[in-house]
Amino acid sequence: MQISRFSEIAQDFPVVFFDSYGVLRNHNGLIPGAIECVEQMRARGIHVRVLTNNAARSPVAAAARLAYYGLPGIPAEEVITSGATTRHFLEQKIRSGKVAYLGTPAAAEYIISAGLEAVPVAEVDFDKLDEIKGFAFLDDEGYDLNKDINRTINLLRQRLVPVVVANTDLLYPVDKENVALATGSIARLVEYVLGRQFAKFGKPASQMFQMGLDSVAQFFPEVSPKDILMVGDTLHTDILGGNSFGVTTALVLSGNTRADSVDLEVRTSGIIPDFVCNSIGE
Amino acid sequence: MQISRFSEIAQDFPVVFFDSYGVLRNHNGLIPGAIECVEQMRARGIHVRVLTNNAARSPVAAAARLAYYGLPGIPAEEVITSGATTRHFLEQKIRSGKVAYLGTPAAAEYIISAGLEAVPVAEVDFDKLDEIKGFAFLDDEGYDLNKDINRTINLLRQRLVPVVVANTDLLYPVDKENVALATGSIARLVEYVLGRQFAKFGKPASQMFQMGLDSVAQFFPEVSPKDILMVGDTLHTDILGGNSFGVTTALVLSGNTRADSVDLEVRTSGIIPDFVCNSIGE
Amino acid sequence: MQISRFSEIAQDFPVVFFDSYGVLRNHNGLIPGAIECVEQMRARGIHVRVLTNNAARSPVAAAARLAYYGLPGIPAEEVITSGATTRHFLEQKIRSGKVAYLGTPAAAEYIISAGLEAVPVAEVDFDKLDEIKGFAFLDDEGYDLNKDINRTINLLRQRLVPVVVANTDLLYPVDKENVALATGSIARLVEYVLGRQFAKFGKPASQMFQMGLDSVAQFFPEVSPKDILMVGDTLHTDILGGNSFGVTTALVLSGNTRADSVDLEVRTSGIIPDFVCNSIGE
Amino acid sequence: MQISRFSEIAQDFPVVFFDSYGVLRNHNGLIPGAIECVEQMRARGIHVRVLTNNAARSPVAAAARLAYYGLPGIPAEEVITSGATTRHFLEQKIRSGKVAYLGTPAAAEYIISAGLEAVPVAEVDFDKLDEIKGFAFLDDEGYDLNKDINRTINLLRQRLVPVVVANTDLLYPVDKENVALATGSIARLVEYVLGRQFAKFGKPASQMFQMGLDSVAQFFPEVSPKDILMVGDTLHTDILGGNSFGVTTALVLSGNTRADSVDLEVRTSGIIPDFVCNSIGE
Repeated sequence: MQISRFSEIAQDFPVVFFDSYGVLRNHNGLIPGAIECVEQMRARGIHVRVLTNNAARSPVAAAARLAYYGLPGIPAEEVITSGATTRHFLEQKIRSGKVAYLGTPAAAEYIISAGLEAVPVAEVDFDKLDEIKGFAFLDDEGYDLNKDINRTINLLRQRLVPVVVANTDLLYPVDKENVALATGSIARLVEYVLGRQFAKFGKPASQMFQMGLDSVAQFFPEVSPKDILMVGDTLHTDILGGNSFGVTTALVLSGNTRADSVDLEVRTSGIIPDFVCNSIGE
Repeated sequence: MQISRFSEIAQDFPVVFFDSYGVLRNHNGLIPGAIECVEQMRARGIHVRVLTNNAARSPVAAAARLAYYGLPGIPAEEVITSGATTRHFLEQKIRSGKVAYLGTPAAAEYIISAGLEAVPVAEVDFDKLDEIKGFAFLDDEGYDLNKDINRTINLLRQRLVPVVVANTDLLYPVDKENVALATGSIARLVEYVLGRQFAKFGKPASQMFQMGLDSVAQFFPEVSPKDILMVGDTLHTDILGGNSFGVTTALVLSGNTRADSVDLEVRTSGIIPDFVCNSIGE
Repeated sequence: MQISRFSEIAQDFPVVFFDSYGVLRNHNGLIPGAIECVEQMRARGIHVRVLTNNAARSPVAAAARLAYYGLPGIPAEEVITSGATTRHFLEQKIRSGKVAYLGTPAAAEYIISAGLEAVPVAEVDFDKLDEIKGFAFLDDEGYDLNKDINRTINLLRQRLVPVVVANTDLLYPVDKENVALATGSIARLVEYVLGRQFAKFGKPASQMFQMGLDSVAQFFPEVSPKDILMVGDTLHTDILGGNSFGVTTALVLSGNTRADSVDLEVRTSGIIPDFVCNSIGE
Repeated sequence: MQISRFSEIAQDFPVVFFDSYGVLRNHNGLIPGAIECVEQMRARGIHVRVLTNNAARSPVAAAARLAYYGLPGIPAEEVITSGATTRHFLEQKIRSGKVAYLGTPAAAEYIISAGLEAVPVAEVDFDKLDEIKGFAFLDDEGYDLNKDINRTINLLRQRLVPVVVANTDLLYPVDKENVALATGSIARLVEYVLGRQFAKFGKPASQMFQMGLDSVAQFFPEVSPKDILMVGDTLHTDILGGNSFGVTTALVLSGNTRADSVDLEVRTSGIIPDFVCNSIGE
């Protein structure tokens, strides 16, 4: 596909949504040129938001993480996590009580901040299952897959409660060659063996795009999808979700999608970004 | 599951979203009590919207249809169709040119009103495929499945363009015993044989819920999902979509879901409505 | 992948199974060199069988078809069709009565030769559904998809009987550019909307490989899978099925799989042929 | 569905295939009447085989297990395991070298007895991946899911080799209420995240039925599927596989399928046993 210069296409949009991992930073650290890219947008008055499929840390921690990697000036208010959309769901659908979860204590904050009690699957009392009012797949760490996946399956077979998946990513990169199972894969496995369908958050689902739009609307009331450029490195999340929400989409080749396979992946998936760029630094 | 009286639960919500077929009317005509139900809501100042997975007719035609069946006072402005969310997508993602489609001429209005040229698949010139800028699955009628499904597959194999599915319903009821393939099934088949993933509209996708929310916000600016009751007859569209969007959900047993199987369907699907009612007339 | 000369690898096997379309012939007619290839095998005393995912014609008609295209000396006894494995199933599982089907009258012979009465879906009397003892997806022609697909769905919703799919192919080539829906796609769609799983025949299922083995065993009693080379043009049927049955597999590039995409298709599918050849004529 | 007495239907068949867990024994130990049932068959000269989706132990160990639970007289020669069909595949498709696996050392015997070197995934040297000639999913125990599932995914992304799944069961019962993930679920997850399709063994695949038929044919040369009754407790493995292979099938309600849900499971799955019995002891 034709490669566009990111700086040239971005300047036409009053609002830019960035995915985080693979776009702003990757396993090598910050993407070269990321700082200048964001500074130029600030200078132009472009509204910036970061949309990250992540329920492992809070927006505050996610912003701190970007600062740690050397990207300054992304306040927590400009970071939209899939955890935040998940908390919204929990607030609406589960009024009170205990929510069992798979994830880290940090991820459990999304349950606690919804006014609910978070119980790790490993600590669920199967003699008092009726206390459990919901279940959340939050993160791929913080538990023992050997034991807790079976505890999860048995809990959900015996107790019918709302189940939420905070992140539908299947894999995430851990270094140049290797990947690891993400929350979405664990949830998908449980859906498959139980024959069920859970409520899912994170791109490509549209809740995060809407939350980003609402966040910008506080400062730019008449904002609509046509004002927004979504920048991501993954066809099935950033680009499919952005296309479905009706925003313009730019695929960058600094993360999951590689230059030597982008044509093929687009052709076989049928998910078509409006633009393809090497990275946000070019 | 416990059966609630609809009139009692509805009065607690300032906004009610109704699915149309199976909720307001079914193959027997209007649901008994539907007129009184809507009148009471008007009297109470409840904001009413109809969310229908339908790209076969315009909101005006859909409202007229309800009036024809005897339900007065649902103006077109209060009807949200999946066709309308599809048109929104086409406007954003395809700036100009021809869009090939499967559906009726009435359904094609959603393409034309997006400022695009609508071409039935049967009339696509395969020698000028580069004129085709997009493809839309609009309706299950208006074409010859024997020929046009293969034309669609070959068009999409040879031409890489955005594809939109205006309605993900798999089946719809045609009478008490029988069903027919809906647009979603045709699109799913093409996705399956091509190994692709199309942009999809209609419940359970959230665009219609958002469009309903935005429509109410003109009159009730501070409206949020917690103010809304979604009333539907189908677990996988109305209830899953409503739950994911964070609104309260009520399943009625006057359509797709029958009283003698509701417990089982909820248990096996894991999709849990907040309330179950026999119909909106009780 | 490395390209081998077919003549060199074939000579090491006492038994060779050929797929038909894409291997012996394609839309251009007979594969150049096919006649010499088969003659050489005869001269060497190699046992030849043709395994074709086809329930549209009888082994006699399939053999005649090959002769018509110029390939002599493939007697009907050496042709194994997926229709034959389907008939075997019908004989075993449905002792008597009417079997409804989608397909041509020629395909229906497989039902009739099993001692059963074949009824086209279009002619099923829905007031006497209890007469229907089974259902068969036989072919992609011989019926009106617009009407008969819905009749099939409604029949199977109202009547619980064994269902058989005579051919799991999804698509078949009709000319150099174009494909058409095969029986497997129609059956898959019905499985999907009904949430059911039908009994399936044709490669990659192993019944045809076993029938081929049994057929050879009449003349070569100690034959085992290690004696057999399966030659096919499709990874998901010929090669996956052959690998699972434990025979050696050779992929030819004269049909569904093209030279410019074979590496990628093997890598992405994970289905690995033991050999890759341009065609049986080289 | 109508409940038949097992003793009455079994007497009509010269050959009976039993699934093991849920049919001969369950979490309570031996099924009441199992000993008498098998003794009567011996007395009648009925050929008995046990077909078990199990690659965790050898036929010898599986027979010993049955004897341990109090069922005498099932020699190892009459036990067909999915591990045995897997070994057959490995022998045919991987001539020599190292095969990486997930499972216990006992399961690895199926690799070793195929003349290959078995390497647990945890011990694979990623700097010498080209030594790995194949991969086997053997068992759900013997490894650390937290680490080894990711090692498996990365190995298979970097090294293209034949992959075999020794058992497609998704879950197995561990006690009256609880289940645990079986090998098939782990393999399915890896297939899903990699978008691949592995060679699969164990019911419903037909290799075990064929191996059972071949085993009986040594003593009863003219045996054919119509002579065989397959007895199982699981619709998707025993009954679907038996139906597809063309044998008569009997579902027993002493294992996975419960009396209070059998009608529904048959109706929703469309997998129809020829007979339903409470247990082999009645």
